[in-house]
Amino acid sequence: MVELFFEDFAVGQTFGSGRRKIEAEDIKRFAAEFDPQPFHLDEEAARGSLFGGLAASGWHTAALTMRLLVESDFQPAGGRIGASFDELRWPQPVRPGDELRVETEILEIKASKSKPEIGFIKVKVTTLNQAERAVQEYIANLVVQRRQKGVRKPVLRDAREG
Amino acid sequence: MVELFFEDFAVGQTFGSGRRKIEAEDIKRFAAEFDPQPFHLDEEAARGSLFGGLAASGWHTAALTMRLLVESDFQPAGGRIGASFDELRWPQPVRPGDELRVETEILEIKASKSKPEIGFIKVKVTTLNQAERAVQEYIANLVVQRRQKGVRKPVLRDAREG
Repeated sequence: MVELFFEDFAVGQTFGSGRRKIEAEDIKRFAAEFDPQPFHLDEEAARGSLFGGLAASGWHTAALTMRLLVESDFQPAGGRIGASFDELRWPQPVRPGDELRVETEILEIKASKSKPEIGFIKVKVTTLNQAERAVQEYIANLVVQRRQKGVRKPVLRDAREG
Repeated sequence: MVELFFEDFAVGQTFGSGRRKIEAEDIKRFAAEFDPQPFHLDEEAARGSLFGGLAASGWHTAALTMRLLVESDFQPAGGRIGASFDELRWPQPVRPGDELRVETEILEIKASKSKPEIGFIKVKVTTLNQAERAVQEYIANLVVQRRQKGVRKPVLRDAREG
């Protein structure tokens, strides 16, 4: 996959991902280890809860989103290093059998004033189910590396913006 | 554990948790499934990265924090239902052998205008390592159930505030 540097990003660019299906067993296994609340562990208990049925832990959705991001076209050089995250929401529950994908949109780009080798990008990361409904949203502020001077690749940049 | 209703919470209350140790194998196993970036998977590769050594995925820290919260004294009735999360940060990397605990502080309390059976609380959730340094922070806006009228338990409330 092509690594993207600070200079390769532009406001309005979007990046897609592959898809991943989540099954009831995945939901229960994650919940047993990290979020053992009845509505994530047991169909019967979940029916009587606010969720009205088995639902994935939001942190499971967040973790799966990261997996989809790592395998997506969104490949900042040096890795996806998050400085901070805001407005994390789970507007819809993730249900057994859901198939998730991720869309990343570049919202802002800012050079670092103190560190010439890095920059910051603000991205909106939306996780969608097979019905194209958002199951998770967040805004991430990421640290990205700058390309060394003299080795810019404007061709790549144009392709990404198109 | 005692379930806490909207009426049981007060600004400034804090809740502690137990502790959980995280080992290199846990870090790699989580990363292999959810965040397969070199600095979460391999000591050698991690040494050459921004982290300077193996570090847990931030989403692993978030998941472990949830586990500690579920087992903590912070037990809102009906479960920990997050409406939204802000200012999620990982100020320090989580390293193999780290032992984590969670502190929850109540920042704001607000009744729902449209739904008399629920209310909202804003909490700051801080995850600390064995050196008492924050490895994760976030602000969560949670939905909590109100106690039914006529069954208030002021004794519990006083105890929590003390």
